[in-house]
Amino acid sequence: MRINGVEIEDTFAEAFGIKMARVLITGATPHWARVAAQEATGFGTSIIMCPAEAGIEREVGGDETPDGRPGAYIMICHMSGKELENQLLARIGQCVLTAPTAAAFNGLLDAEIQYDTGFKLKFFADGYEKEDTIGGRRVYRIPMMQGEFIVEHSMGAVSGVAGGNFFILAKNQMAALMAAETAVSAISRLEGSITPFPGGIVASGSKVGANKYKFMKATTNEKFCPSLRDEVETMVPPDVEAIYEIVINGICPDAVEKAMRYGIMATTKIPGVVKITAGNYGGKLGKYKMHLKEILR
Amino acid sequence: MRINGVEIEDTFAEAFGIKMARVLITGATPHWARVAAQEATGFGTSIIMCPAEAGIEREVGGDETPDGRPGAYIMICHMSGKELENQLLARIGQCVLTAPTAAAFNGLLDAEIQYDTGFKLKFFADGYEKEDTIGGRRVYRIPMMQGEFIVEHSMGAVSGVAGGNFFILAKNQMAALMAAETAVSAISRLEGSITPFPGGIVASGSKVGANKYKFMKATTNEKFCPSLRDEVETMVPPDVEAIYEIVINGICPDAVEKAMRYGIMATTKIPGVVKITAGNYGGKLGKYKMHLKEILR
Amino acid sequence: MRINGVEIEDTFAEAFGIKMARVLITGATPHWARVAAQEATGFGTSIIMCPAEAGIEREVGGDETPDGRPGAYIMICHMSGKELENQLLARIGQCVLTAPTAAAFNGLLDAEIQYDTGFKLKFFADGYEKEDTIGGRRVYRIPMMQGEFIVEHSMGAVSGVAGGNFFILAKNQMAALMAAETAVSAISRLEGSITPFPGGIVASGSKVGANKYKFMKATTNEKFCPSLRDEVETMVPPDVEAIYEIVINGICPDAVEKAMRYGIMATTKIPGVVKITAGNYGGKLGKYKMHLKEILR
Amino acid sequence: MRINGVEIEDTFAEAFGIKMARVLITGATPHWARVAAQEATGFGTSIIMCPAEAGIEREVGGDETPDGRPGAYIMICHMSGKELENQLLARIGQCVLTAPTAAAFNGLLDAEIQYDTGFKLKFFADGYEKEDTIGGRRVYRIPMMQGEFIVEHSMGAVSGVAGGNFFILAKNQMAALMAAETAVSAISRLEGSITPFPGGIVASGSKVGANKYKFMKATTNEKFCPSLRDEVETMVPPDVEAIYEIVINGICPDAVEKAMRYGIMATTKIPGVVKITAGNYGGKLGKYKMHLKEILR
Repeated sequence: MRINGVEIEDTFAEAFGIKMARVLITGATPHWARVAAQEATGFGTSIIMCPAEAGIEREVGGDETPDGRPGAYIMICHMSGKELENQLLARIGQCVLTAPTAAAFNGLLDAEIQYDTGFKLKFFADGYEKEDTIGGRRVYRIPMMQGEFIVEHSMGAVSGVAGGNFFILAKNQMAALMAAETAVSAISRLEGSITPFPGGIVASGSKVGANKYKFMKATTNEKFCPSLRDEVETMVPPDVEAIYEIVINGICPDAVEKAMRYGIMATTKIPGVVKITAGNYGGKLGKYKMHLKEILR
Repeated sequence: MRINGVEIEDTFAEAFGIKMARVLITGATPHWARVAAQEATGFGTSIIMCPAEAGIEREVGGDETPDGRPGAYIMICHMSGKELENQLLARIGQCVLTAPTAAAFNGLLDAEIQYDTGFKLKFFADGYEKEDTIGGRRVYRIPMMQGEFIVEHSMGAVSGVAGGNFFILAKNQMAALMAAETAVSAISRLEGSITPFPGGIVASGSKVGANKYKFMKATTNEKFCPSLRDEVETMVPPDVEAIYEIVINGICPDAVEKAMRYGIMATTKIPGVVKITAGNYGGKLGKYKMHLKEILR
Repeated sequence: MRINGVEIEDTFAEAFGIKMARVLITGATPHWARVAAQEATGFGTSIIMCPAEAGIEREVGGDETPDGRPGAYIMICHMSGKELENQLLARIGQCVLTAPTAAAFNGLLDAEIQYDTGFKLKFFADGYEKEDTIGGRRVYRIPMMQGEFIVEHSMGAVSGVAGGNFFILAKNQMAALMAAETAVSAISRLEGSITPFPGGIVASGSKVGANKYKFMKATTNEKFCPSLRDEVETMVPPDVEAIYEIVINGICPDAVEKAMRYGIMATTKIPGVVKITAGNYGGKLGKYKMHLKEILR
Repeated sequence: MRINGVEIEDTFAEAFGIKMARVLITGATPHWARVAAQEATGFGTSIIMCPAEAGIEREVGGDETPDGRPGAYIMICHMSGKELENQLLARIGQCVLTAPTAAAFNGLLDAEIQYDTGFKLKFFADGYEKEDTIGGRRVYRIPMMQGEFIVEHSMGAVSGVAGGNFFILAKNQMAALMAAETAVSAISRLEGSITPFPGGIVASGSKVGANKYKFMKATTNEKFCPSLRDEVETMVPPDVEAIYEIVINGICPDAVEKAMRYGIMATTKIPGVVKITAGNYGGKLGKYKMHLKEILR
């Protein structure tokens, strides 16, 4: 299969279940909503060594928020529901409650799992909190130096999907990077998915375990390293000098597949992109298989 | 004391010792250095519930970096040296190593404390790493999908200063916020200091412990809440509707004081700013006292 | 009428007919589309002394563009159709043709007025141009140093509306400014309208002619100057210290009214905003009257 | 000559004299200074069809400005001193006077040419203007809706240099573009120079006159078009797929040469860059010759 001259490998991305909370942060302006969202989702690329996987889903106008102010949806993910709840509390408490003009609303009203994060945060008000309703949402008003912080009682979470992915193989590092950037931009307009790595992009790429340093749980995937082409049994095509991966977490398989489709389509417009493939473990480990050909049909 | 019509209270900021590492991240462009720096310093406002305090110090041109590419200095802080080392490893390993085009160099070459973070990260290369020298620095080249990741062997750390601060009291929330924004911008041009909160600004403000909810370690400082003016013994002047705090960590007391001076001077140019003060615990807890009058002399 | 506590004056904005062309600029990434759009619409606040009124309408994803790349719609306006055609040619020729990765498509396919701007620009190719079709559009491929520039044969224009407006009166300059910023952000998400002034905002405000300097065609509107409150017969309410105006041009009256509605609603969320009004000439000069109460009903 | 593996052609850039004014725009925050600066320098790539060549030189902190607020220096250039004065008046009057919180100061105090642009703009105040001194500068305070606009009496101009340049030849369009972006970023930190094209970059490239369309004054330079490699006597090396040019205007030859040096050095760090050259007319037309080898020595 070829799209705009780019080869699409006949393979699939293998993805896993993950617990995922969604929060809507609003602010006085889009800038200030973004500031809170960025701080709250930082240090959140991979649960291998980050305390959570997190990212900004997309920005919304005031016509889509309970308080009529511009906002940004964020997602926070963890394998453990208990740890997810802790991360929600810590990230909203430390990075949204403290952020200028920010408010935090439930991003998954209808989800079965509802954490009472707002209720827990109200204790910061030391008895001066007031309960109220904004746009039909049950919120607490917490007096602060800037005025007040508004937080909804509950924050919803679902069993979502982690590790949706595709790989961009290009003639040159800069072509691969620009393709990755435009893919992430395309995905950032969509509902229900995040790309948790820095700028949405993975520059490394890992295999489980190690050949030499046996104490390592994950090491570089030498078969996909262009500079090791002559030293190992390589998977890097001859005309490829660089590869970036886009990792996608989403609230459901459809959201991940839509993100993959929009992201891949965007990459095929960048001169120098040679091939798109995806990462899997032979289908043995993950709950979900996203076949590139089906997604792009 | 008055500067540009703004009252400067005769008081001092009380600050504490903290362990602080400094890393120079470079990238293909200033944008990509910033992307890595932002991810690596996120979820880092306060060690109360964040795994570290972290921030971007300032951006530099290629003429100031070992590899000749544009870069950004970041700082990561923790009370415990051991935890600081863990955070360095996790944040560089998960948020810089994975970031497109990023490299990580030692930001404190002459510091006594030198963590071998780069050495530890080289094991990710699973034996394919190469040792090299760039701009006189001892680095590892780790083969990756994008090409390679370059990291310096050691990352330096010092006993720095946390909790330098000042408060901006204004007639209106938006005046206070714009003053805070311009203060943070002024500080972002300086060497040796960060403002770790979201956008560099603290919207809340806390007291140690609680009056009502005794199980809380820190709660809102009701005396500084404009909306509680009529309910409590208030510290909020009659014409003040909003207060923001700028918290500053720095590599030495001078760096913190310089940041306070530049930040405060900037706020006095914003219409609606009424007063500048600072937070302290009567001088009983902190190692450092920064007197506003001396700083601004 | 009051919305979120803000008084809405019972008045109307008076707007005029203007010729308006609309161009869709695409780029490799949203950033590069924006770079071209910004350069092409600069020096375009008011036709009083600018060669055109111009602005970025809104950004779109690759799923909404003929070439599948991200883009931005821009509008260029002039009272004279002849001058509009000249401005189209000059601004696309100098600021889009020269911009990295940019392409220019017709933004008003069905409009009666169609300028052959693309046809005129093809002569830059000195005979090496190629005619082609992209997404059903008739385009020229112009060989360049970067590769090629793609431009559609025709650019459509309509008789649109200029000078839709509203005024934001606030307790403090910074409150007025933040309200103006968030209004402009809200409008930037809408189809069919631009806010041509710097950052979308007018800091001045003028009356026709002059009292003292008779050679001036337009001078400051002293009745709306807060600092002249005690010297002239003022229109500034006692608790107002600053006023900003948002000027809106749109492809039709509905587009202008929608922009006014979204913009005004956004301002009412900002603390310190006291009143919204609009500018008119008693209904004697303009073709269009936008009544605030009807727009906001 | 090779730098970091990139070939530097033994040639020179040919540059011309131009009249150049320099203005310092300040604002409440760096963001608002930038908003005014961007609008004022838009539609200013080349005097072939733009009313001026213009660009943002660099941003400065409040410690470098007369009013203590953050700012940005801009430059406006024209072959004709009379036209330059008109452009100064129009661009400051329409794009800075109208911009929120902006003020305009003389950026070349010691220059022999001093236009009384501020004096002319004061008439907008219709008699309500006040003369004052700020940081030793003679300014006018013009009452406005937002409060006031401050403008210095005179704006200085010099006989500067236009058309300093270098060409980036790369294996791929995206490599050339990223190299151009990082070059422009490096130059944006320097004093005394601008890169007036969109994003600082020229995607086209032109020859004087035409082969086929004799009525054209300038047409594409087919010898530098990669896609015409097989049709014309080409100057494009076999491994080059894209070329971008950086055009630099500066207040003196040294400023242009420094910008060329910093810009070129930055490009050599980007993978895929093959060669750097420069544009000239055999030395017959321009007043200045900048030899790459001397600049980079």
